[in-house]
Amino acid sequence: MDTKKSIQKYLEELSSNSPTPGGGNVAALCGALSASLGVMVCNLTIGKKKYLDVEADMNQLKEKLNVYTERFITLAKNDNEAFERVMDAFKLPKETDEQKKLRSGAIEKSTLEAASVPAEVIANCRELLPFLEVISSKGNQNSLSDAGVAIAVTSAASEGAFLNVLINYSALNKKQKASELLNRAETLNAEIKEETQFLLSEIKNKIRGN
Amino acid sequence: MDTKKSIQKYLEELSSNSPTPGGGNVAALCGALSASLGVMVCNLTIGKKKYLDVEADMNQLKEKLNVYTERFITLAKNDNEAFERVMDAFKLPKETDEQKKLRSGAIEKSTLEAASVPAEVIANCRELLPFLEVISSKGNQNSLSDAGVAIAVTSAASEGAFLNVLINYSALNKKQKASELLNRAETLNAEIKEETQFLLSEIKNKIRGN
Repeated sequence: MDTKKSIQKYLEELSSNSPTPGGGNVAALCGALSASLGVMVCNLTIGKKKYLDVEADMNQLKEKLNVYTERFITLAKNDNEAFERVMDAFKLPKETDEQKKLRSGAIEKSTLEAASVPAEVIANCRELLPFLEVISSKGNQNSLSDAGVAIAVTSAASEGAFLNVLINYSALNKKQKASELLNRAETLNAEIKEETQFLLSEIKNKIRGN
Repeated sequence: MDTKKSIQKYLEELSSNSPTPGGGNVAALCGALSASLGVMVCNLTIGKKKYLDVEADMNQLKEKLNVYTERFITLAKNDNEAFERVMDAFKLPKETDEQKKLRSGAIEKSTLEAASVPAEVIANCRELLPFLEVISSKGNQNSLSDAGVAIAVTSAASEGAFLNVLINYSALNKKQKASELLNRAETLNAEIKEETQFLLSEIKNKIRGN
């Protein structure tokens, strides 16, 4: 994904009838938004007297989260490319039996790759969540809502990515090879959903002063 | 929000220790991403023989959703401005009793406004969701995962916005005036969450072919 593109241009391209960027790309972008928001909370904690005892943690977390922002941006780009390869495979000639066989193989291969990218988005969301949890509990409490937004958006990134794993998996002829990929994505996504609900409920109670 | 800004620049500013853009802005941006993704599914349905009978609906929905994209972008901008007004109020002089009174009044007023913007984000998510539901059921079924991502991201936009309503509400001295705002935001957000879970479960079953 070309992040030099303006937000307006991105939204225009997203709205258009060109299939990329699509939902898989948005899911990965949401991951990048979450990680960046987590970095913001670290930055709003670092240098504050009240939070001196967690400053080292916040500096470490900030470095880690910057890596995740980059990863999600790379995955957003990979998602576009993987989808374009599926489209290319569908355009292959299908007149002779050999052509049909080649085309079918290329569709199968590219579809499996298109399922792998969102599966990686989910795996990265799973890794990101505990860092966001620490940020929400130890970071600047004036930014507790920001940490909460990061957590909510991570969950949407994962759920959105899961739908993309699922639709590509469903399009495969030979599902067995990918069933492990699907099962792992489903398990991680369910864990993220459960943990998110718990964390958001805790954050809301904390903001309410309960 | 200046949508002419590049995604990279936005992520950099989001990560920085400047308080805007923050979580409220990301929540509103997520609304814009969802609406744009809905428009994409409309565009991928319009002109397809198989979907001729829903073409008029899709054209109407597309127009409606474009309005929501614009609204969410405006709300993202309003969120930055509202937060900056809160910051400005805190910077007012507080030496004399009169200054203290003025400052305290300005903080109260701007904080209430800062709660109103995310409340509007939630109200717009509540309106958007039924449109996305129609798009997911009647639109191009090859893009069912995209409609699902739009729904998941709408839910995160609403939840993120609710955290921003809540943190601003909690900062108010006179809560009674804003309790209706909070209650309405909470009700709408709970409706969105429930409906999202139902819709996403349906979409997953449909993709699995159940």
